[in-house]
Amino acid sequence: MARDRARETEARLSLSDMSPEEFRRHGHDVVDWIAEYLQQVDSYPVLPSVKPGEVRRELDEVVKGGAEPFQRLLEDFDSTVIPGITHWNHPGFFAYFPTSASGPGILAEMLSAAVNVNAMVWKSSPAGTELEEHTLDLLRGLVGLPDGFFGTINDTASSSSLYALAAAREAALPTAREHGLFGAVPGRIYASEESHSSIDKAAVTLGFGLEGVRRIGTDDQFRMDPAALRQAVAADIGEGVRPVAIVATLGTTSTSSVDPVNDLADIAAEHDTWLHVDAAYAGPAAIVPELRHHFVGWERADSIVINPHKWLFTPIDCSVLYCRRPEQLRKAFSLTPEYLKTEEHETATNLMDYGLALGRRLRALKLWFVLRYFGSEGIADRLREHCRLAAGFASRVEREAGWRVVAPVPFSMVAFRFCPTDDDGATDAADRINLAILERVNASGEVFMSHTRMNDRIVLRLCVGNLRTKEAHVDRAWELLREAATTVV
Amino acid sequence: MARDRARETEARLSLSDMSPEEFRRHGHDVVDWIAEYLQQVDSYPVLPSVKPGEVRRELDEVVKGGAEPFQRLLEDFDSTVIPGITHWNHPGFFAYFPTSASGPGILAEMLSAAVNVNAMVWKSSPAGTELEEHTLDLLRGLVGLPDGFFGTINDTASSSSLYALAAAREAALPTAREHGLFGAVPGRIYASEESHSSIDKAAVTLGFGLEGVRRIGTDDQFRMDPAALRQAVAADIGEGVRPVAIVATLGTTSTSSVDPVNDLADIAAEHDTWLHVDAAYAGPAAIVPELRHHFVGWERADSIVINPHKWLFTPIDCSVLYCRRPEQLRKAFSLTPEYLKTEEHETATNLMDYGLALGRRLRALKLWFVLRYFGSEGIADRLREHCRLAAGFASRVEREAGWRVVAPVPFSMVAFRFCPTDDDGATDAADRINLAILERVNASGEVFMSHTRMNDRIVLRLCVGNLRTKEAHVDRAWELLREAATTVV
Repeated sequence: MARDRARETEARLSLSDMSPEEFRRHGHDVVDWIAEYLQQVDSYPVLPSVKPGEVRRELDEVVKGGAEPFQRLLEDFDSTVIPGITHWNHPGFFAYFPTSASGPGILAEMLSAAVNVNAMVWKSSPAGTELEEHTLDLLRGLVGLPDGFFGTINDTASSSSLYALAAAREAALPTAREHGLFGAVPGRIYASEESHSSIDKAAVTLGFGLEGVRRIGTDDQFRMDPAALRQAVAADIGEGVRPVAIVATLGTTSTSSVDPVNDLADIAAEHDTWLHVDAAYAGPAAIVPELRHHFVGWERADSIVINPHKWLFTPIDCSVLYCRRPEQLRKAFSLTPEYLKTEEHETATNLMDYGLALGRRLRALKLWFVLRYFGSEGIADRLREHCRLAAGFASRVEREAGWRVVAPVPFSMVAFRFCPTDDDGATDAADRINLAILERVNASGEVFMSHTRMNDRIVLRLCVGNLRTKEAHVDRAWELLREAATTVV
Repeated sequence: MARDRARETEARLSLSDMSPEEFRRHGHDVVDWIAEYLQQVDSYPVLPSVKPGEVRRELDEVVKGGAEPFQRLLEDFDSTVIPGITHWNHPGFFAYFPTSASGPGILAEMLSAAVNVNAMVWKSSPAGTELEEHTLDLLRGLVGLPDGFFGTINDTASSSSLYALAAAREAALPTAREHGLFGAVPGRIYASEESHSSIDKAAVTLGFGLEGVRRIGTDDQFRMDPAALRQAVAADIGEGVRPVAIVATLGTTSTSSVDPVNDLADIAAEHDTWLHVDAAYAGPAAIVPELRHHFVGWERADSIVINPHKWLFTPIDCSVLYCRRPEQLRKAFSLTPEYLKTEEHETATNLMDYGLALGRRLRALKLWFVLRYFGSEGIADRLREHCRLAAGFASRVEREAGWRVVAPVPFSMVAFRFCPTDDDGATDAADRINLAILERVNASGEVFMSHTRMNDRIVLRLCVGNLRTKEAHVDRAWELLREAATTVV
């Protein structure tokens, strides 16, 4: 610590960065910390037992001001931050859509942070731009999409869908870029009742308002009903409303249901309307040959979002937007100030032209490393295994009296419910019992599941997607659920 | 390599991640690579000498498919990606706004990638949420903003400004969220001719269109003219247009000019209009006592954007949005689907409510580490030194016959021009000569500067902001410029 102090003081006086020697030493400490953390992540409770404000109070006490040695920062991180985080790396993490900070992904992020390039235009980092193009072409091939889909990486699916719908708006209402929406023909976006809230957020942001999204009903398997869509589009056109986009979800958040994208593509084609596919979670499953059938027709989409930071072992954030009409994205977003004009502006790809964000860090590297380290077969094997674990869980739930699986399981996620009276459990009492079971199970610290609401009733969700999850963890989840059910009732 | 192969195969068959032992070994290699890179970054050419498509072709040849050992990925990164990147870490990087991947910032990013938390709601990572709140309160104090500014971290200033202007739209046109803009009173955003293009992009995205931004003229120091703004607002109101937001820029991109934010705040107050401050580059300068005067009045803003990933030694991406009316951000963006509702939803901060992006990685950690490692005085010392270097450069340019500084130098950036005929150089010939000088200087590989256009004439920019830049690098830049001028003329 004394040595640290002296060196830090020296660094401060020299107005430099941490010296390369210090970086090397602290870097090795950080790597060792991470290796140990990953080795024993299952010894932490998945969910921390803190109350709102507790971590904040500790943090507020920690800081003294003045330059501090790195060693202390690492200690504070370990003693103050770590006890308050939700361990997304825990093999018992089954909530939302799980993610994985895989080894190659973490190592790539280290390198990205170090080179710190900003690929806003080609010239500001040629390899940053071209690695993104190369890697997204690689992924495109793996998921079986044809040539002609241009890919870019954004932070989240919310941004990717916003950009896609902005391109759709540009295509349907070409005066919007210049004149805005104030005098325009009202436009509408169509998405199923099960589509993600990011579609509504995008619609609000783009000036369509919540009314600008029409929610289309679903069938008994929670898939968008094409007949209902066709009717809604026709009704809107009759009232002078312009269809702007149809959003198909392949892998919805509540039940991972799969909209009939090929049928929806027909309707989009009939009305010359943009088709956007939200495959943020399930997209990587198209790498698995026997799961590819769920995606038939998505190649007809105008835009597709796939999040490698969900089910493709890539640390957050990495959301891929594929677009078959990239010129529409450019029309929506290209706007180059003088200071960013370069001689290569017409001949090279400038990533800033395909979205709102100007700055772009080197996110492609982690995806490149992940794809190559695991290889396409290695990835397929792992996704297949997650589906197998989910299917095994579902079959045990189905066999057990009083429990029901409430939706098909096309991928690695199971939506289920405890029905204490052994009828369909559609009562407020059953809802309360299911939430109580969930709370009890999550309080164990061994697993973390989440809930949703289907047909206005509480449903529990178990999603397998973390690279560290093995059969034993799923077994344990089921054990905890059954125990909780006996205690709670 | 053989050992690697065997282990990778084992990992593949076990369907696991890279083992912790392997992670440790590769992690140490990566840290050593980074330490060496940072040590000798000035031996690389700042700008790579590649042509569009060259890196891509090499990358396309590299990949073989199948799982690959990590060692090979690191080698390919070093041999294929590194020769094609623009070295933002190079001490001769003077283009755009320079950035720094400081040691503590890089080390924090390693940890963030490893824990891989997604703090969309409080429960999904309590410490992720509260570290962000704590760190942004720390920064708020350092830059002298009062209590009551609520901060969030976004990827880029483009996103931060979009969110701020969405909140402004919500405040001015409260029916927009529900009904969209189709039937609404037209709204307008005011920004100076020198404001950043991200304001236009945000306006297009939000449905205002390019016409929704009125560019206000500037004085001879490139600062927005309050009288012209007042006139424009009055004229719009007379025509039934609603003022939505006034954007003040403190540190414009072309010349780092400073809008008279206090006067603009008066006008905003008169019309009850949102005041947004773009201090993406210059904001950190408010930490330096003798530079604080440039910011007088910004505390009256409704929202302020400051990018620690520009001039605060934090690796990209980290853009901070401070908002004095966070409830307006929530009105614009809060939309919580059932699956994200938690018992803490009303009592804790849920970061997803303050912007478009749902997913949020742990970006606060790097800023926390940077602020603590360097300390407020250490940061002030470094920023002060950058300003001193810029002032020194400016005075040499001014003293030299045929060269002119074309704008005041409030911070660390100099806008200048070679005027070969020793008049004001406002000719197409002079523009061509300045671009030729720039090209020649950048081709040296020793420095990278960029250009802009002022009063329709080419202007060169030298911005000091990288932690590794010392006096010698600025001296060398000036030497190269003078040499180039003699050769080019």
